[in-house]
Amino acid sequence: MELPDGTSTPALVVDVDVLDRNIERMAAAARAGGFALRPHAKAHKCAEIAARQRAAGASGLSVATLSEAEAFARPGVDDLFIAYPLWLDAPKARRFGRLAGAARLRVGVDSAEAARRLGDALRGTARPVEALIEVDCGCGRTGVAPPEAGALAEAAAGAGLAVAGVFTFPGHGYAHDPGARARAARDEERALAEAAAALEARGFEARVRSGGSTPTAGEWRPGAVNELRPGVYVFNDAIQLGIGTCAPEDLALAAAATVVSRPAPGRFVLDAGSKVLGADRSPWVDGHGYLPAYPRATVTGLWEHHAVVQLPAGEPAPALGAVVTVVPNHCCNAVNLADELLVAQRGAVVDRWRVSARGTNT
Amino acid sequence: MELPDGTSTPALVVDVDVLDRNIERMAAAARAGGFALRPHAKAHKCAEIAARQRAAGASGLSVATLSEAEAFARPGVDDLFIAYPLWLDAPKARRFGRLAGAARLRVGVDSAEAARRLGDALRGTARPVEALIEVDCGCGRTGVAPPEAGALAEAAAGAGLAVAGVFTFPGHGYAHDPGARARAARDEERALAEAAAALEARGFEARVRSGGSTPTAGEWRPGAVNELRPGVYVFNDAIQLGIGTCAPEDLALAAAATVVSRPAPGRFVLDAGSKVLGADRSPWVDGHGYLPAYPRATVTGLWEHHAVVQLPAGEPAPALGAVVTVVPNHCCNAVNLADELLVAQRGAVVDRWRVSARGTNT
Repeated sequence: MELPDGTSTPALVVDVDVLDRNIERMAAAARAGGFALRPHAKAHKCAEIAARQRAAGASGLSVATLSEAEAFARPGVDDLFIAYPLWLDAPKARRFGRLAGAARLRVGVDSAEAARRLGDALRGTARPVEALIEVDCGCGRTGVAPPEAGALAEAAAGAGLAVAGVFTFPGHGYAHDPGARARAARDEERALAEAAAALEARGFEARVRSGGSTPTAGEWRPGAVNELRPGVYVFNDAIQLGIGTCAPEDLALAAAATVVSRPAPGRFVLDAGSKVLGADRSPWVDGHGYLPAYPRATVTGLWEHHAVVQLPAGEPAPALGAVVTVVPNHCCNAVNLADELLVAQRGAVVDRWRVSARGTNT
Repeated sequence: MELPDGTSTPALVVDVDVLDRNIERMAAAARAGGFALRPHAKAHKCAEIAARQRAAGASGLSVATLSEAEAFARPGVDDLFIAYPLWLDAPKARRFGRLAGAARLRVGVDSAEAARRLGDALRGTARPVEALIEVDCGCGRTGVAPPEAGALAEAAAGAGLAVAGVFTFPGHGYAHDPGARARAARDEERALAEAAAALEARGFEARVRSGGSTPTAGEWRPGAVNELRPGVYVFNDAIQLGIGTCAPEDLALAAAATVVSRPAPGRFVLDAGSKVLGADRSPWVDGHGYLPAYPRATVTGLWEHHAVVQLPAGEPAPALGAVVTVVPNHCCNAVNLADELLVAQRGAVVDRWRVSARGTNT
């Protein structure tokens, strides 16, 4: 591809037409199923992309940290779900209180202790903050068992939070087997239904029942789940391609990289390493990324500034100095390494977007 | 550990006493062997740490990219080796010419085409730029075969570069077996000696014969190699601990993280994920990091903002809200995710250092 004057590799490039198609397709799927769509912004960390998601009908954004919420509140996103069991220390408590005054805020809860701190931080603020009880549907990460959701909802309400429902993350749906993805979606439905019943048994309405991930996107059924939080779908990546939830033409993000060395026939080295692509590995990707122009190539080695690419016997390598693109294994970590995204349309760079929430971890 | 007021987790913390000891130990080993020491700054990306390395006797710094060189030239590092087969496009050619006027500069070369571009970029600049020919000693990344170094030196000299010697990277020395590390060091010596002979056969003095990495640091013998470029040793990390090149008391960098969830007995979840620790895996580390206070714990799962830690049966987990530290698998990628390092001494934070070269990939 051609980079504009003044631009060097490595650089992350977004194909805006593919991006818009991905955004619209997910929005249409959510509409068709009657789900609210609250995309996870950790995948792009970019105000321009958030605006496109909102324009396509997203009800708000999901974020992972308080500072990510602050970063998106700044350009005016006014409905934010911190889908994380936030633990407030003293500085975070002050920030949380301020943010609650600036945006409609929802936060995850998976312990009574954390809920108490959230409630304490809100004392004196006029605006209510909604809490969703996090339940584990089989991913084995955070969240209580569904039957415990009722007691935790009581604790959260006692702490002063407005209990609005339940949420879960079907991380075990990252699988090459479509049957496994469907099973994860069913786990999610079961866990949310059970947790919602536990809330209702204690007199809470489980108005929001939030789940969803990009791999389970094709598996949704209306009913137990009524809100979805996929993130990766805006770009897709080599892992999504590997598990079969997207096609090569759905890949919207890649690193433009230069061939800096051709040490052996069929082998070449690019200037995009783990400090550009991220170091994520996956059982569903053979190597460290995917080269759209060389789909049979394997990134056999990844150092911080070198990607070693091996071609099948007989396939000619690109010339020294050629610019080729590599799709990262995991787009979320790649984006978080970049300060800006080059925006391309039909092969030409037409804009630059700042990764406005890069590095917002606290 | 105690974080100072106004500081929240996750945050990278450097133990400055351990850091200084690591810096001094490597400097002493280099002095004892009669090696020049040119530490690789990609491991820390921090002007304050570079200054400490220079004060301990480092002859200059190694860097991986042109922008990393620019970042270190700014605080006055005046002797920089871009240990990479730099390929100059038009904007990089302009920047390279400017930088050559500001610092004593050395650059890696592994092709005649790249050398020509480097030479072209320097036309009209008064100061000579040294070139080191890169050879592959068995790592399988970049670099020509040692016998080809002579012809490439001629091409580099023809392009206007001042050929000063040869360099290599013994990346295959990352191994748990000390015998394998020693063999990598011998490979390095052989490759550099052979490449130096190839230069001398064409009338070039191979004044600089540069190699070295942290894993091969215990294996150096004076002779064929006369300059060393270890990087990771300033901090060490879980991989170095795993392969046995450092002890727990040599770990100078860790992420301070908060226990945000205790989903099951013996399991807890920290707020430092792959966007803080990096996603590097290693065959020599069981899991995604090392917890100094829980040495028998395993980080069994790492998401972007969650580290799931499993303790052996019967070992009590830290309380919700407790701050514990996690040593990343690979320090270089962790540092590149942070904007600042908290500097601790005897358990108290005494300073903050900016990661001044974070994100300098181009």
